[in-house]
Order: sequence, then C-alpha cells, then structure tokens
Amino acid sequence: MSTILNLAKRRRTIRSFRHDEIDISDVYYALRVAREAPSGANKQPWRFIIVRDQSLKKRIREYCEEVEKEFHSRAPEWLRDWFREMGITWRKPFLENAPILLLVFSDGTAPYNVQSTWLAIGYILLALEERGLATVTYTPSKVRWFNELFKIDKRYVLQTILPIGRAACDICSKQPRLPLDNLILGVY
Amino acid sequence: MSTILNLAKRRRTIRSFRHDEIDISDVYYALRVAREAPSGANKQPWRFIIVRDQSLKKRIREYCEEVEKEFHSRAPEWLRDWFREMGITWRKPFLENAPILLLVFSDGTAPYNVQSTWLAIGYILLALEERGLATVTYTPSKVRWFNELFKIDKRYVLQTILPIGRAACDICSKQPRLPLDNLILGVY
Repeated sequence: MSTILNLAKRRRTIRSFRHDEIDISDVYYALRVAREAPSGANKQPWRFIIVRDQSLKKRIREYCEEVEKEFHSRAPEWLRDWFREMGITWRKPFLENAPILLLVFSDGTAPYNVQSTWLAIGYILLALEERGLATVTYTPSKVRWFNELFKIDKRYVLQTILPIGRAACDICSKQPRLPLDNLILGVY
Repeated sequence: MSTILNLAKRRRTIRSFRHDEIDISDVYYALRVAREAPSGANKQPWRFIIVRDQSLKKRIREYCEEVEKEFHSRAPEWLRDWFREMGITWRKPFLENAPILLLVFSDGTAPYNVQSTWLAIGYILLALEERGLATVTYTPSKVRWFNELFKIDKRYVLQTILPIGRAACDICSKQPRLPLDNLILGVY
C-alpha cells in the first residue's frame, strides 16, 4: 500500500485557482483529519477560520499585499532571486480568487504549539489532495492584524492561510526535490 | 475516498514497542514521503539520521533521561499533572527498545525551517501508520548534544526523535479529541 506516497508525489503547490465553487464538506473533511493529529501534551492547539465571503477575502488580500510590498523590498538577495525565478511577486490574487480561505491559528500558550499545528497542516495538505483540492501554505510576515479583524484572543497566532480550490493549471509543475541520499546525514 | 481520515483516526501515539525487527524499507518509505512535502522557498530543510545500533540507542536514552530528570523537576504544575495522568516519567525506555530511532533535524538557516520540517513530520506519521508502524514524536528539551554526538554542522537542529516499531499494546487507547466546533473560531 503506497497511497500516502502517491498523494504526496501527486500534490503540487498551487497559487492560481479556478473560480468554480468547491464542496465545503471537503474542507471540513480536512479539518476532521487535522483533529486526529498528535500534539504537545494533547493540547490540540490548532484553530481554524473559514472565509468564503468575497469582501472579506478582498480585505485580507489588500492587507497581505501591503505587508508583501514591504517584505519584498527588504528580502535577502537569494530570496529575491528565487521569487523572480518562480514568478512570485507581492501580488497575492489567490487570496481573493480561491473559493475558500482556511486560516490556521495556533494557541501560543500550548507547549510545542507551532510544531503541533504544522504537523496537523501536513495532515490537511494530504487530505485536501485526496479530495482533489489544491492549496499553498501562504504566511504573511505580519499576523497580528488578523486577531483584530476576527476579534479573537491574542493567544491565537496565525500560522498560515490556505487558499483552497481547484488548480487553474492543467499540468502544474512540481519543484525539484533533493535526492534521498542528500537528506540522510547518517545510518548507524 | 477517506483513506487519510482512516489512517489519521487509527493512528495512536505509542511509547512502548515490541522487540521484533522491522523492515527498514518501511522507514525509507516514510522518508520518500517526507521528501515530497512543500517547504519555505523549496529549501527542503529536513535531514534524517537512522539509528539501529544498540549501544548508540543506549547512549541516546541515557542522555535524554538526564535531560528529562531536570525537565520534570522544573515543569509547571499542570504539565506534571498531565504526566502523572498519562504515566509519563523521566524514563524513556522506548529510546532503547524501539528497533529504530529516526532523528529528524531541520536546517536552521532555511526560512520557515521549523514549520516545514514539522509539516513533513505529519507526512511521516501517516506514512508509518500506513505501513503498520507505530511511533511517538519525542523531543528532548536540550538538543545541541546530538550535533556533537553525530558530528554534524550546528546549522542542523534536532526537531524530534521518532522511535519506530510495532506497538506493544494490543488495543492502545487514543487520547480524546476536542469536538470540531471548538476548533473553528469562525465561518464567514
């Protein structure tokens, strides 16, 4: 059985989405998967906000693009080169065009909350892929604004925004991966 | 198709392992899965060390138990209560008894390296579950010693040790999960 490997290999990071509606039950499916992840002291520090509202998505896009402009202006040279190569700019149309944004927060008071939440994000990516949905883990470099926008306790820290939808490309390229040998520092 | 949900639900955190040998190709399978994960600027910051050598496992156990004694003595009250409830002490026999230890490091120089590596650890847990292997994400509170032990560059930071084997319990209990409603802070 190699279902996980097939899903992991098939999955691509997608930054351009078709406008088609998606079935929200598929997003809830991914959350039911995330809920099963292990966490530090079983604190289950992951929290979610689902955004379908078009005007709210637009506000989020506008805020993130402001933050991105500033981030791109001070990014290190190697990262700017990578952005250029990938065609990544400060523009984030996917925040407005993806049918659903899934915002993932972690409870900053829980032990290993960042680690646990990102482990659960790994679960979410595979669950979305299984349901034929595409996404990208997009994290703006400033996140406090989201607590004000949604009026949520400051203990919750935005970890990532997952724009979710169907990939706009027919054949989307996958970034190359390092050979396994390069990843293994030793076998004893 | 709900393979991912079934695997995620079936998976339990295991701290006690049977002595049976396991097929190392199943561990490589999990690494091939991890290799497919997305990462900040595609830096693929995850690095791995596989330990089967019994004397090396013993040294790792001894070091971790020293660190744990100190950690348990200064842990906050709520965490001590949780340890008591779970029967968790400073003793870490699984570090010696599991047939394989998979040490996961991240390259601390890569952007979002902790987040990316834990996302990949999520992939690994599901891949191991698919192959019928059990584990626990165990992270000692001090990790620099591992760089000396394995003579690896200090850019690599131990994120977790995954002891891998067959679960020693026939029916292992799963810690309760919060209802999905408690995890969703808003739907817009």
